Amino acid sequence: MKTTAASAALGALAPAHASAEAPPQPALQRVEPPSWWVGMAEPQLQLMLHGPGLAALHVRMSAPGVRLLGQQRLSSPNYLFVDLELAADCRPGRIDIQLHHPGHDTPLLNLSYELQAREPGSAQRQGFDTRDAVYLLVPDRFARAEPAVAPPAMRESRVQRSQPGARHGGNLAGLREHLGYIADMGFTQIWPTPVVENDNPSYSYHGYAATDFYRVDPRLGSNEEYRALAVQARQQGLGLIQDIVLNHIGDHHWWMADLPTPEWLNQWPSYTETHHARVTWQDPHAAPSDQRRFSQGWFTPNMPDLNQRQPQLATYLIQMSLWWIEYAGLSGLRTDTYSYSDRDFLSRWSARLMREYPRLNIVGEEWSGHPAIVAYWQRGKRNHDGYVSSTPSMLDFPLHYALIAGLKEADQGEGGIYKLYEALAQDFLYADANRLMAFEGNHDTPRLYSQLNEDLDLLRMAWGYLCVVNRIPQFLYGSELLLTSPGQRDDGQVRADFPGGFAGDRVDGLRGRGLSPRQRTAQALLRQLLNWRRQTRLVHEGRLTHYAPLQGVYVLLRHWGAPGSAEARQGERVMLVLNKQNQDVALDLRRFADVLGPGDRAHDVLQGGAARELGRTLTLAARSTTLLQLAAR
Amino acid sequence: MKTTAASAALGALAPAHASAEAPPQPALQRVEPPSWWVGMAEPQLQLMLHGPGLAALHVRMSAPGVRLLGQQRLSSPNYLFVDLELAADCRPGRIDIQLHHPGHDTPLLNLSYELQAREPGSAQRQGFDTRDAVYLLVPDRFARAEPAVAPPAMRESRVQRSQPGARHGGNLAGLREHLGYIADMGFTQIWPTPVVENDNPSYSYHGYAATDFYRVDPRLGSNEEYRALAVQARQQGLGLIQDIVLNHIGDHHWWMADLPTPEWLNQWPSYTETHHARVTWQDPHAAPSDQRRFSQGWFTPNMPDLNQRQPQLATYLIQMSLWWIEYAGLSGLRTDTYSYSDRDFLSRWSARLMREYPRLNIVGEEWSGHPAIVAYWQRGKRNHDGYVSSTPSMLDFPLHYALIAGLKEADQGEGGIYKLYEALAQDFLYADANRLMAFEGNHDTPRLYSQLNEDLDLLRMAWGYLCVVNRIPQFLYGSELLLTSPGQRDDGQVRADFPGGFAGDRVDGLRGRGLSPRQRTAQALLRQLLNWRRQTRLVHEGRLTHYAPLQGVYVLLRHWGAPGSAEARQGERVMLVLNKQNQDVALDLRRFADVLGPGDRAHDVLQGGAARELGRTLTLAARSTTLLQLAAR
Repeated sequence: MKTTAASAALGALAPAHASAEAPPQPALQRVEPPSWWVGMAEPQLQLMLHGPGLAALHVRMSAPGVRLLGQQRLSSPNYLFVDLELAADCRPGRIDIQLHHPGHDTPLLNLSYELQAREPGSAQRQGFDTRDAVYLLVPDRFARAEPAVAPPAMRESRVQRSQPGARHGGNLAGLREHLGYIADMGFTQIWPTPVVENDNPSYSYHGYAATDFYRVDPRLGSNEEYRALAVQARQQGLGLIQDIVLNHIGDHHWWMADLPTPEWLNQWPSYTETHHARVTWQDPHAAPSDQRRFSQGWFTPNMPDLNQRQPQLATYLIQMSLWWIEYAGLSGLRTDTYSYSDRDFLSRWSARLMREYPRLNIVGEEWSGHPAIVAYWQRGKRNHDGYVSSTPSMLDFPLHYALIAGLKEADQGEGGIYKLYEALAQDFLYADANRLMAFEGNHDTPRLYSQLNEDLDLLRMAWGYLCVVNRIPQFLYGSELLLTSPGQRDDGQVRADFPGGFAGDRVDGLRGRGLSPRQRTAQALLRQLLNWRRQTRLVHEGRLTHYAPLQGVYVLLRHWGAPGSAEARQGERVMLVLNKQNQDVALDLRRFADVLGPGDRAHDVLQGGAARELGRTLTLAARSTTLLQLAAR
Repeated sequence: MKTTAASAALGALAPAHASAEAPPQPALQRVEPPSWWVGMAEPQLQLMLHGPGLAALHVRMSAPGVRLLGQQRLSSPNYLFVDLELAADCRPGRIDIQLHHPGHDTPLLNLSYELQAREPGSAQRQGFDTRDAVYLLVPDRFARAEPAVAPPAMRESRVQRSQPGARHGGNLAGLREHLGYIADMGFTQIWPTPVVENDNPSYSYHGYAATDFYRVDPRLGSNEEYRALAVQARQQGLGLIQDIVLNHIGDHHWWMADLPTPEWLNQWPSYTETHHARVTWQDPHAAPSDQRRFSQGWFTPNMPDLNQRQPQLATYLIQMSLWWIEYAGLSGLRTDTYSYSDRDFLSRWSARLMREYPRLNIVGEEWSGHPAIVAYWQRGKRNHDGYVSSTPSMLDFPLHYALIAGLKEADQGEGGIYKLYEALAQDFLYADANRLMAFEGNHDTPRLYSQLNEDLDLLRMAWGYLCVVNRIPQFLYGSELLLTSPGQRDDGQVRADFPGGFAGDRVDGLRGRGLSPRQRTAQALLRQLLNWRRQTRLVHEGRLTHYAPLQGVYVLLRHWGAPGSAEARQGERVMLVLNKQNQDVALDLRRFADVLGPGDRAHDVLQGGAARELGRTLTLAARSTTLLQLAAR
């Protein structure tokens, strides 16, 4: 009898004496979630039981503090959904759930289900926030260590590092070995692309096509190893953000052989792909069919689209999300293809997660350059249509695009760096811009360094900006080593192997060997910036004031108190100046009197903290990033 | 004694026997507004009296229904502000206002001030709305007729048609001669650039640097002629929109020789120009000084910046706006450099205008590509900061930019026509998107035809779009003749003379002589589109549904009832299809079943109304605009 779940002990109580004619002997093959916890805010729990003939059985149980609310069946004969209610005083331990043939008193099957105690403080765990800097990595591509247990054969077992779309062999063991490097760089959170099983015949490395929602992909490691990773990371000051996909699964997901009901998926008369028109949720002119096509159309033919309007699936996805948070001790979730899921489901899903973990963070991916579209999904936004979300954070695609355009384009009129200024000015659209995650790049976008034409001066501006702006900054693994990719989307190239993560790598960023001078410079720069940012509370919590760029010079300050107040003018401050001009500039500081005062003294963060007197002008080198820390006067 | 006002009769009652030593004999030189009306919603009226020594005088008066509320003086000795209250039953006629030396009973000066009766229905006049199409023209550049009265000598009297920045001699008489042409083209509103006196030594033709707010520039015509223009236009089905500037004046404005108070202007220690950072009103990160610089900085050294926080000036500007509406019988205002004025003033100003004329329209110019910035200023928007506006319409710059990018750029991913689709989807940001004014171009932007690389296929798409989208469409004079301009801003070229508007023009668009075949095609096309639009109520009031563009094909429909309803599927409909592909496309119509049904029959508007059967597919020619009118079934 197969069990995939760690904590569910499945036992066959009845003898196996099925005749050839009879329907298959009922058997329990899966129970999900595989375990649960007492003391959750929401007392209800729905178990999905899967195995041949289970729908024909009835549940009986008696356990202190646990009430059987009901049992539900869908069209497949092989699923039984068991609704339980855990009383507030329910104690941890195993409970027995018996499955009977109708009318028979002797149980046919027994499920010994584990209810665990929660970790102390679990509900009040602090999610990632503006104090953090996030390192996004693809586990298959970051680092490999020989695993403790060799992974079983799977549909794509072969490691082919020369093939951009194949598995490269990175794993959790490799990641664990190098958590110290990540922490030393100044990061405080890691976001690996999805780690759950993707037992697909090709492109299984990226993780966005789950075949088992409750199992870490054995090629990466085990569930236990994933949990150990989280513990070890936490010891090094690194939180763990899990990347989850609610919108779709892989077509080799075990459900696909036996759907609980056809409604489990968004079904179409013939294959219908989403057209990615995400504005259809907000657009007052969208046709209903166009909206449907967006959210119910499939992402690819190999990614069956989940129908979150199906009640048992909705509950499944909510519980699955909670399970990983609790099981692995996550600091938050990153939710892939956020708006592609059903909107009302997302509202329920996020509300439930935040009810269980009021200080958690969840960051959604809404790949839009329009801030009003991204803002729509953030908790606290008062939307035109009354839509309510509880998701605290969103990935800031509008700022990502503005950052690139702002640095790349010429500074004429309202182009160039002015675009970045105007993009940040749109913060009024967000319920809480400080909670957004700003990113230099991710696994789907061309490498920032390449987008900036491999211009280290511009890259320095981008990194400086991301470390000072009122956001949670996120970086892609390998950026510190100046990894490149073509301008057109090229996943394999963007998700290249981290130099040094694999045995025999000539260039080794993890140990600082074989790097080019530029790579050394970049890595040291990011390390310095992030470590400075980590200890600079002003950048986490302070107010931000910026000034309209003039002639390609853009000034942002972080400070306490309202601009113009004594607190702002005399307190601790951080000043970032981006000079895109090809020549030195003598910046007249009188313009910034709201936040600067006579006699201000500064330390130049990027010049080793060298003291700098702020007189009437500040000299900016051509194409420079100046980051000053001003002491309180 | 000089009077500039039409209806204010100024009389010197006292003998002129000033001695050489004495201060100048008080004299009344101006009274503004020059007349007023009984029966306005707001009973208060503030007169600005200007003349040497007037501030030393005191007002006495007695007139039935008129109460003297008070008299106010500022720092100049030559202004007296007289506050009156007109009772609800106040009758039209002249009232006498006497000015006395303090303590003297004999009046020194008498002002016989006219209170007129309002035109019937004046308060309830209908402003321009979605039924309209607007023709923007520069009076100096549109057409010239020999004036009835030769204009007086002014600082720039010379006509030099070869100089782009000089006067070209167009006038209201010329415009009046060709109202028939404009109406025949299908327009229903004209918007001339400002007509008030601009007695400046250069660049006086554009009208945006007033030297007298109450006087039509004599080179264009007289106040009376302007009023006659409005009457004549109305008779031809054309409303008149007046372009006004609240933000600044010309440096030869008569105030400049004798400011009522230095606070009349936004004063700076040294010349300080606005940096045009209009987002500073909304930006939560804007520095107060940066905000000040935007709205209080001067537009140019020759355009002194009005300080609308000064109470008497605020009242002056409000009354001036009302005066022109009432005097000339306007259908609305276009407000230049809208957000450059003081925000709180704009709130008061727009509230007062809409109180007096509840169905009026006002369209503001906020030159921003960000819809959330434009939306901020529209009546009904619930703003993040509680700001309230009563201005019903704004010029839709975001859609203007999206239209050009959408047509010019290649249709890859979310570029090209997809940008136009996503821009329209942002309509949820507006309190009332239907009231926005969409424009193909204006006097400040490069000619659309040039921006579209002189591609008539693309121009047809743009015009078709503007005539079908849920907006008030606005066109620039001469677009119908394919006038061109460089890609970089070139005011003189954009504001070229209308071919045929001036004696001896070889090409004459007004009479259809000497046009190239392409010009003929374009003119006929716009005439056809606008005349079709004028009589198609569905486009004025119907719902709009559009579909995400696929492969460069974009479909919009206007219809009654919600998409999917029988009313939408069977009622009258208009369908616009833009095909940007370089090849014919067989468009599968099943996708549009929300608004199309089997057996739909259509008339092809741009093909002379030819009948077209709508089967399962619709054949679209390469790079085509298809405009279909579908009958109710």
